[in-house]
Amino acid sequence: LEKAHLILAESALELIPPEIWHHPAIHNYARKRGKRPSELVLDISMHYPAMKKLPDFLKRGRPDIVHYCLLLALDSPLNKENLLCTIVHTYQDKTIYIDPSTRIPRNYNRFIGLIEQLLVLGKVPPKSEKPLLWVKSKSLEELIREISPSKVFLLDEGGVKYNALTLGKRMAREARPAIIVGGFQKGELRSETKSLADEIVCVYSQPLTSWSVLAIVLTALGIAIRIV
Amino acid sequence: LEKAHLILAESALELIPPEIWHHPAIHNYARKRGKRPSELVLDISMHYPAMKKLPDFLKRGRPDIVHYCLLLALDSPLNKENLLCTIVHTYQDKTIYIDPSTRIPRNYNRFIGLIEQLLVLGKVPPKSEKPLLWVKSKSLEELIREISPSKVFLLDEGGVKYNALTLGKRMAREARPAIIVGGFQKGELRSETKSLADEIVCVYSQPLTSWSVLAIVLTALGIAIRIV
Repeated sequence: LEKAHLILAESALELIPPEIWHHPAIHNYARKRGKRPSELVLDISMHYPAMKKLPDFLKRGRPDIVHYCLLLALDSPLNKENLLCTIVHTYQDKTIYIDPSTRIPRNYNRFIGLIEQLLVLGKVPPKSEKPLLWVKSKSLEELIREISPSKVFLLDEGGVKYNALTLGKRMAREARPAIIVGGFQKGELRSETKSLADEIVCVYSQPLTSWSVLAIVLTALGIAIRIV
Repeated sequence: LEKAHLILAESALELIPPEIWHHPAIHNYARKRGKRPSELVLDISMHYPAMKKLPDFLKRGRPDIVHYCLLLALDSPLNKENLLCTIVHTYQDKTIYIDPSTRIPRNYNRFIGLIEQLLVLGKVPPKSEKPLLWVKSKSLEELIREISPSKVFLLDEGGVKYNALTLGKRMAREARPAIIVGGFQKGELRSETKSLADEIVCVYSQPLTSWSVLAIVLTALGIAIRIV
């Protein structure tokens, strides 16, 4: 293993979309936050009444999933050993690059503030030459082409069942594996996403949250290369 | 393995203590939340200026650590297989029991609301005969006596280094292992806590966050008993 790329795919992270800027629930929330709706992250726990109109609304507005997954990935031994590169791809085909040394805010509300700055201004810190996080409009297909992994593993309930350690060892045999995990709550990965995978796999017989999948895969890979 | 008890020890979770109820920062926060200071969870990301006066303030006011750890533990395959019982022991020697079927709120602010209800009223839902979460005043020593584990493993940076899978297998050989992980940010577990352990162990050469330790230990135990 030289470098593993962890990609949270189709993640439920975006600014409030124009279609619902004028909904009263959004209006009230924006006033409370002291920002414009266009500058705020969509969050289904606050914006459910307004979101019901949106297509795929059950796959959107879950920034907490991205938050927990980033905390887990960036604090993992794999990342501390410089063997991991974590990237967030979103529902809207934006790609968020993250410097592996970034210390993601532990507090959710501070994380939301950071992401709002990122999505509005394109990078964080906004004026840095070497930002910690930066965003590009980029499809998952373009992203995969760019990082050119030696093999693409995609975690999906419907995939081939492996025990975690066997999967970890198979990933560890690759120089540059990409590991794709869905960054949303409910529903399927798009068929275009699945078509990018060399192998579609799973590690448990029941659906798991994104962070549980991540915990298992990152630990199994860490065990396979003997860093934990 | 019959049942593993996961104990988050000395967790940085408590209501705002009386010593700082009258601090202006607390006053403002309470007004904004529309509650009394005595009904609010202490959170260092909001209450830092007031907290600096408190003893051990760097070990307190981190409800987010408990939140992420509970999300990981309760969503883990081990818990889904009814092999895990998760308990939160706090800095103030309160013990929070959690029905393993509980679905912890994903959103941080809703989690905080739930914990405030729990710590003020003693259980959630408040009038239930079979609550999902309930709290008792109980030291870790009393708790350990009550659950009478076959062996107590305590995870600590200073412990004997194991590779994760070996540790997972050793835990799996026990019928009722207790696994203690510190539920706070910085500083040491108390010597009384350490004295309860049969074995003090660690899985990595550098300090890890509580949730990273949990991810590793729960996965390693899951691999050892072949559920993942």
